[in-house]
Amino acid sequence: MPEAVLTLNAGSSSIKFAVYEVTADATARRLSHGQIEDIGGAPHFVATDGGGAILAEHRWPAGASLDHEALLSPLLEWITRHLGAESLMAVGHRVVHGGETYDRPVRLTPDVIAALSRLTPLAPLHQPHNLAAVAAVARLRPGLPQVACFDTAFHHGLAPTVTRLALPRRYAAEGVRRYGFHGLSFEYIAGRLREQDPALASGRVIAAHLGNGASLCAIHDGRSIDVTMGFTTLDGLVMGTRCGNLDPGVVLYLQQVHGLDAAAVEHLLYHDSGLLGVSGISNDMRTLLDSDDVHAREAIDLFVFRIAREIGALTSSLGGLDGLVFSAGIGEHAPPIRAAVCARLGWLGVSCDLAANAGNAALISTPDSAVQVRVIATDEESMIATHTVNLLHPALASAG
Amino acid sequence: MPEAVLTLNAGSSSIKFAVYEVTADATARRLSHGQIEDIGGAPHFVATDGGGAILAEHRWPAGASLDHEALLSPLLEWITRHLGAESLMAVGHRVVHGGETYDRPVRLTPDVIAALSRLTPLAPLHQPHNLAAVAAVARLRPGLPQVACFDTAFHHGLAPTVTRLALPRRYAAEGVRRYGFHGLSFEYIAGRLREQDPALASGRVIAAHLGNGASLCAIHDGRSIDVTMGFTTLDGLVMGTRCGNLDPGVVLYLQQVHGLDAAAVEHLLYHDSGLLGVSGISNDMRTLLDSDDVHAREAIDLFVFRIAREIGALTSSLGGLDGLVFSAGIGEHAPPIRAAVCARLGWLGVSCDLAANAGNAALISTPDSAVQVRVIATDEESMIATHTVNLLHPALASAG
Repeated sequence: MPEAVLTLNAGSSSIKFAVYEVTADATARRLSHGQIEDIGGAPHFVATDGGGAILAEHRWPAGASLDHEALLSPLLEWITRHLGAESLMAVGHRVVHGGETYDRPVRLTPDVIAALSRLTPLAPLHQPHNLAAVAAVARLRPGLPQVACFDTAFHHGLAPTVTRLALPRRYAAEGVRRYGFHGLSFEYIAGRLREQDPALASGRVIAAHLGNGASLCAIHDGRSIDVTMGFTTLDGLVMGTRCGNLDPGVVLYLQQVHGLDAAAVEHLLYHDSGLLGVSGISNDMRTLLDSDDVHAREAIDLFVFRIAREIGALTSSLGGLDGLVFSAGIGEHAPPIRAAVCARLGWLGVSCDLAANAGNAALISTPDSAVQVRVIATDEESMIATHTVNLLHPALASAG
Repeated sequence: MPEAVLTLNAGSSSIKFAVYEVTADATARRLSHGQIEDIGGAPHFVATDGGGAILAEHRWPAGASLDHEALLSPLLEWITRHLGAESLMAVGHRVVHGGETYDRPVRLTPDVIAALSRLTPLAPLHQPHNLAAVAAVARLRPGLPQVACFDTAFHHGLAPTVTRLALPRRYAAEGVRRYGFHGLSFEYIAGRLREQDPALASGRVIAAHLGNGASLCAIHDGRSIDVTMGFTTLDGLVMGTRCGNLDPGVVLYLQQVHGLDAAAVEHLLYHDSGLLGVSGISNDMRTLLDSDDVHAREAIDLFVFRIAREIGALTSSLGGLDGLVFSAGIGEHAPPIRAAVCARLGWLGVSCDLAANAGNAALISTPDSAVQVRVIATDEESMIATHTVNLLHPALASAG
């Protein structure tokens, strides 16, 4: 059995994973994937192959209070049985925040883990879960190399003017600035675009990662120039349950007039807002697109309006626009959303080929469109696997 | 002596006023203006004529705790002496918030005043001071007509998608939405542009009100289409001491990590942020432009970057751009800021005539610029005076 890499994306209510075979040319080929879901409820581990067939499964009783070690144990045992004892070479983790230090993936050592723990105040809802999975793997498989891949790293080169907030300087000194997230997705998209259309990849492109979380990244010649997510993952576009851009005066109003405390506002803005809050129906775009409810329509209109508005903002940061890439769940699978966004961008010379768009084609702009519009399926897990292989097997990677 | 109108702009630390003569053609000609400043310190009332000569003055001892009635009494007494007992026909007030009801100026009756008081939670730092001045004038001059002119009214026709926030719907029902402010300034600018260049005024124009407060308004054929200020006057551009756009997660961080309460964050974001916070030097653009300090440069760069970025966003809402108007203190008097903003907008076809710009000319774009760039001196007081005359003297206005 060849060497394999396990990728983990550990959140509060689920742990997503995938297993990649390391091929001779240092690429990573996915063998299986799955998740441990309903953590805190009735946890359920399931692994499937590329065709969706269940390879392994485990259920815990409802109400079992399990730590990450207990949750990850069946997964690691299954991998050992499935691949053989010697084959798992490393675990690559998605870690939301690399702060101002980490501009690329890093091997997890005790010092690095301590440094990442200190970033928890910058991402209190995500960083602790990411690091709990790291600690659990370290206890279950001492000596197994682990790598952290950051959602912030792709944006590490943003100019100071782009990252600066208009606050007293002392807050910048402690890391209160714009970071940008979804970096593994944008890095993957930029790489795929380079393969598909090197000329366009050298130009000014906006990538739209439109999933349950959503953000835009302005990319020039492969480098991140501006982003819609800021200090946290709340900022920017309307998301499934997150508010996106919000006048900070609204937070003060909710506290001063409604008496909400910071934790209550945090829950409101992360979990009860966005498409769910406006529609009152669902955070799922498929449900909203299928609905006749006027509130569903209003949520969709707001989602589209804000994307088009922010594309204008990022085009200003880029100084013009050559390409637009839609990606992630909504971006890859919701032609009406792509068509509606493009319809608002005629002033940029965007012209959508509606038939190509309806068919989820790779290129959905007309030949005379001033801006090429593409659909690229993102794959953050493969980016993590590739980074993990490259970091631990530099000789293999350079030979690839 | 002909009839006259007094305009009042009452804030927490100062009350600005102007006296306008009502001319036979229903226009308003300013006779004098001034302010009551250092309220809460050593209050000082001064009125000057158009040439700057002092017409009246009054000083109170430091530490005198004065209500608006005491502060406005010398002003009204002076007007009576100066103009004659019968000449003051009305007082026009700048009132920050007209909520969802008031789409135009309104005569202040007890019912209207009660309705405006109920809007105080939407503008707690401004609305109470505006209304205190109304109450004081009512006590000092019972029966004198008073008119409220709103900063929000010009934006009353914004589309629902533009005003909607991605929050649970129950908050929209209580008025938590985007409103836009600086409406008296934008209305004045739109009117002046209509006089100067009717063709451009029919097109798609962004007006940049750049003073100590700052916001942009996207205007199509004289109607407000989108704005950078939102629910409060905190949102949007970097201002003298206000933060502008800010990830709501920053507010939560300041509370959860630094233990600040809502009032402390409010003070920080309204009074210690913006140009002052970033530079650590001053909220005054003149001071920053004169400084060699690198932090002053950083504050200026951020101010310019964010204006250019938001112009991109508003251009998307307009579907293209025909004109750009700079106004208010910085917009009218800071050629380096205008030049720097224009330099970032070459992608829109903006071409600045640097000589015209340096001379604060009315038209500062080159003949081949795809976007006409103009400088218009705003005058919110004259807008208030004109509205007040038009509302109380409709016959006179229609004859004008």
